[in-house]
Amino acid sequence: MVQIVVLGGSFGGLTAALELKRLLGRQAEVTVVSEEDRFVFLPSLPWLIMGWRKPGDITLKVAGILQPRGINFVHAAALEVQPEPRLVRTTLGELSYDYLVVSTGPQLAFDEIPGLGPDQGHTDCTFTIDHALRTGKTWQAILESPGPVVVGSAQMVSCFGPSYELAFEMDAELRRRRMRHKVPILYLTSEPYLGHMGVGGLGNSKRFMEDEFAAKDIKPIVNQAIDEVAPGEIRLKDGSKIPFKLAMLAPPFKGVPAVAPLGNPRGFVPVDHHYRHTRHPNIFVIGVAMAIAPPEPTPIPVGVPKTGSMTVRMAKVAAAAISAEIHGTPLPSPEELAVICLMDMGDTAALMKAWPLLPPRQESYTRKGVWAKWLKLSFERYFLFKMKHGYSQLP
Amino acid sequence: MVQIVVLGGSFGGLTAALELKRLLGRQAEVTVVSEEDRFVFLPSLPWLIMGWRKPGDITLKVAGILQPRGINFVHAAALEVQPEPRLVRTTLGELSYDYLVVSTGPQLAFDEIPGLGPDQGHTDCTFTIDHALRTGKTWQAILESPGPVVVGSAQMVSCFGPSYELAFEMDAELRRRRMRHKVPILYLTSEPYLGHMGVGGLGNSKRFMEDEFAAKDIKPIVNQAIDEVAPGEIRLKDGSKIPFKLAMLAPPFKGVPAVAPLGNPRGFVPVDHHYRHTRHPNIFVIGVAMAIAPPEPTPIPVGVPKTGSMTVRMAKVAAAAISAEIHGTPLPSPEELAVICLMDMGDTAALMKAWPLLPPRQESYTRKGVWAKWLKLSFERYFLFKMKHGYSQLP
Amino acid sequence: MVQIVVLGGSFGGLTAALELKRLLGRQAEVTVVSEEDRFVFLPSLPWLIMGWRKPGDITLKVAGILQPRGINFVHAAALEVQPEPRLVRTTLGELSYDYLVVSTGPQLAFDEIPGLGPDQGHTDCTFTIDHALRTGKTWQAILESPGPVVVGSAQMVSCFGPSYELAFEMDAELRRRRMRHKVPILYLTSEPYLGHMGVGGLGNSKRFMEDEFAAKDIKPIVNQAIDEVAPGEIRLKDGSKIPFKLAMLAPPFKGVPAVAPLGNPRGFVPVDHHYRHTRHPNIFVIGVAMAIAPPEPTPIPVGVPKTGSMTVRMAKVAAAAISAEIHGTPLPSPEELAVICLMDMGDTAALMKAWPLLPPRQESYTRKGVWAKWLKLSFERYFLFKMKHGYSQLP
Repeated sequence: MVQIVVLGGSFGGLTAALELKRLLGRQAEVTVVSEEDRFVFLPSLPWLIMGWRKPGDITLKVAGILQPRGINFVHAAALEVQPEPRLVRTTLGELSYDYLVVSTGPQLAFDEIPGLGPDQGHTDCTFTIDHALRTGKTWQAILESPGPVVVGSAQMVSCFGPSYELAFEMDAELRRRRMRHKVPILYLTSEPYLGHMGVGGLGNSKRFMEDEFAAKDIKPIVNQAIDEVAPGEIRLKDGSKIPFKLAMLAPPFKGVPAVAPLGNPRGFVPVDHHYRHTRHPNIFVIGVAMAIAPPEPTPIPVGVPKTGSMTVRMAKVAAAAISAEIHGTPLPSPEELAVICLMDMGDTAALMKAWPLLPPRQESYTRKGVWAKWLKLSFERYFLFKMKHGYSQLP
Repeated sequence: MVQIVVLGGSFGGLTAALELKRLLGRQAEVTVVSEEDRFVFLPSLPWLIMGWRKPGDITLKVAGILQPRGINFVHAAALEVQPEPRLVRTTLGELSYDYLVVSTGPQLAFDEIPGLGPDQGHTDCTFTIDHALRTGKTWQAILESPGPVVVGSAQMVSCFGPSYELAFEMDAELRRRRMRHKVPILYLTSEPYLGHMGVGGLGNSKRFMEDEFAAKDIKPIVNQAIDEVAPGEIRLKDGSKIPFKLAMLAPPFKGVPAVAPLGNPRGFVPVDHHYRHTRHPNIFVIGVAMAIAPPEPTPIPVGVPKTGSMTVRMAKVAAAAISAEIHGTPLPSPEELAVICLMDMGDTAALMKAWPLLPPRQESYTRKGVWAKWLKLSFERYFLFKMKHGYSQLP
Repeated sequence: MVQIVVLGGSFGGLTAALELKRLLGRQAEVTVVSEEDRFVFLPSLPWLIMGWRKPGDITLKVAGILQPRGINFVHAAALEVQPEPRLVRTTLGELSYDYLVVSTGPQLAFDEIPGLGPDQGHTDCTFTIDHALRTGKTWQAILESPGPVVVGSAQMVSCFGPSYELAFEMDAELRRRRMRHKVPILYLTSEPYLGHMGVGGLGNSKRFMEDEFAAKDIKPIVNQAIDEVAPGEIRLKDGSKIPFKLAMLAPPFKGVPAVAPLGNPRGFVPVDHHYRHTRHPNIFVIGVAMAIAPPEPTPIPVGVPKTGSMTVRMAKVAAAAISAEIHGTPLPSPEELAVICLMDMGDTAALMKAWPLLPPRQESYTRKGVWAKWLKLSFERYFLFKMKHGYSQLP
């Protein structure tokens, strides 16, 4: 029986495991390795911060998803991948594999900027449920005792959507409470212009964001790198200093240590269009862990985002390729990736789409409307239902 | 009986006097001192310039407003305020006071820029009825013999609305006469960008003004200081020269000589949130005469506007504070000021609102529509009716 | 009988000849000289390139238009104008005249930029039917084997509309074929900003074009001069290099050699408001051949466009002046010129109007709508019908 090991228990890892089991059945033993025993619907973490969701609303037990489908779950951290003997070292021992699917997401490199981050540093963050819970507390403190808020992204970030969402959501919440004038909101970013989002913009997203920010008194500071963070003060590379009471800053992204040696200097792993490692043909890498070159160099380096829906799509492409190879059938030709993002804006939302990911594109637009908010709310429910029941084949 | 002297017979002075009399009745003798024996509805002066109003349409006799309410009116100029012996020297002798309310508006400092102003200089102006009447004549001359028009503001100005209105109104009038192409209109301003208006913009006012100016072929030149004005030529600090046939330029504002010694170097008087002088507790200063720090420094210094409606509100706050103090009751806590401006645009109008005055704000927007024009026309009639009958308590 | 010679068989030449004959009848012998024996409806050449029109759809025989009206047609190239003996040298001999109407259009000065142009160079063009047919073939090659497209204008160009149209049309066609993402479209121009079009913009055309380009992923590079063109590479004066597979670049315009000696250093001829030569009163010059000073200097020199409809209007003014002079009646006072442009955008179109031509203007706007597309389609049919039947008096 073919041994398949999947690293990661989030969008990519779970989808890949479920798809592989669905396609291969008893031909393969599929094992998921993850340090986190909950699946977290990450797109809802901004709502957790705002107090609009509780952890139970947006998490599922990984074992509860996998076991009914006959997939093993190892609750352990991956320590090292050894492509030659084809094994993975974990905190609970070694696993050998015929195929390895890596979907380990980003390493949040807080340590690259002194003072950054929720653990040893002075800033908050939205990328893990624990960070989001901590940030939620800081946010409650702001509501009780107002002060300046900074939301945004450091250099080398490749996920900008949640920062835009939080800026809009905080604005909306403060207006509801009629205290917006007590909380200056500053959007600080490494993007070269508003609405760039790591992909050179989506349709009119630059003008869209500029207009929305102006209408909502959110002050943008673009094209910035952060030097260090002191208590209550962000120090930029250009020498300016920004005071804050709450600063929610995305840290530089890199590859996780177990996988980084397979990749480029930042630890992101180069793959072909089936997400197969360029040198190790039985390793597939999907999601944030894999490398995409940016559309064009920016003054401050930023990365290309890989959204949950992109990662799910990559998982399916990789699973189909592994299955085809095992069955000895031709590998299906994957479609180019699209970014489809439902950006929450508090009272409303926007649908942003770009296909392909990078310019020039067949389709790219940013459209605002309450319908997008309803779509976003429905999608959260739908996806959690689908994942809970292991229906990986659904769109 | 408590002696209360009010300096100024415009929005602030009349409202303060009427409110004080309403609240204090026979407990106080209220005396208004003003050099001008007419109340002029200043927001309509641009319409006077355009020939859309006559002086009688927008003026009321001050004495006719005050005497039925039992308020004294001294038709004299204030020369000096002596806080120690608590008296005001006027051109008709001295007045002693227990409380003094100062609402003297701006001194139009034409003399700070050689060649500026309607009296010894070469430019026109819209801030007094006499200036407006003279400008109206220059405007008629333009209609008969077209030439370049410049509308705008010098450095140290804190009232930009009428200049925007006049640019739009002239544009509309010239189009009606099908001669717009014979009159280049240039909007010259010390604002750092279009739509700043001394308050860092109101919602999308920057883009709004840029779009409207582009659509209407009004050429903007922003962020400028004026060095001097020669006949038919404005000379800017940056060395460039602008020709004109009609130039309507707001001059630098400062405090009037009688009051300036109570204030900062520009003669604007610092007050607390009840508009009470920071050092002389029985002097209250409202309207343009009092000092508000700008939201952030601009390359060319500009001031924060104090509109008629803001001044009326300040008058009520000050009157309520004086009344409470005399009655020995707690001082009411005033709301933060809002700017609400109905900006005429000739064929249409825009409602601009910012609350509080300076960013960040709970509310701030710029919205265009014919409804705003109707609102503006109605408000003029309503306010003049209210003032004529001394109904200071109405909103 | 008065001898009138007309140089040029396009919009201006044909309209002038037909109008002169209509107004003067047997009083004048009218002779049209043109190297091209077809009238080409030039505004439809972009559609020819796109494959949406065939040559027969948009051309008429010049002789078939003129002969029924009793106008001579000499199918020859004009070589020289001799104002003194009042004669025109052509490739078929000399013609003497009492009045000369020059409507020779531009000389396409490909030779001013090494490597530019469809004949000896590496780029394509849209200004003649032969160029357009050749470009149509290059375009078909792009559809079969995609690659980067550059559309735009070199320095000294005075006709920008077709380049905008082609950028929008190519975008639309590529989207219909669902291959837009395979063809980067770059709009390269000497205009100082998008939507300038040689006339300082038309209403909100700057923002309009910026928004449309952003929404359609057409990348603009403005304010550029071209140094030279190598195979597959445009080299700009600022040192940057732009790769292309198809480059459609408007070349510098100058006056044609036969007429250039009558004009300014670029060969464009100065005229009065009846389009009469400023020194030779019996020579009239209309259309691109005559000189209009630009509205204001631009960093890279660009010219003021003279559209087909402007040229038709000039032809009528010149014909009316000649007729009035011959009849000894007062010369009619011509209206100022307007630009009215129906810009095709592929799936939709925009109506752009400016009257007068240069700012400030009584009217100027850019309005998008499918109605404009229908108007454009109808106008092509209407104008070809009108011209085929020689109805020059129709609007």
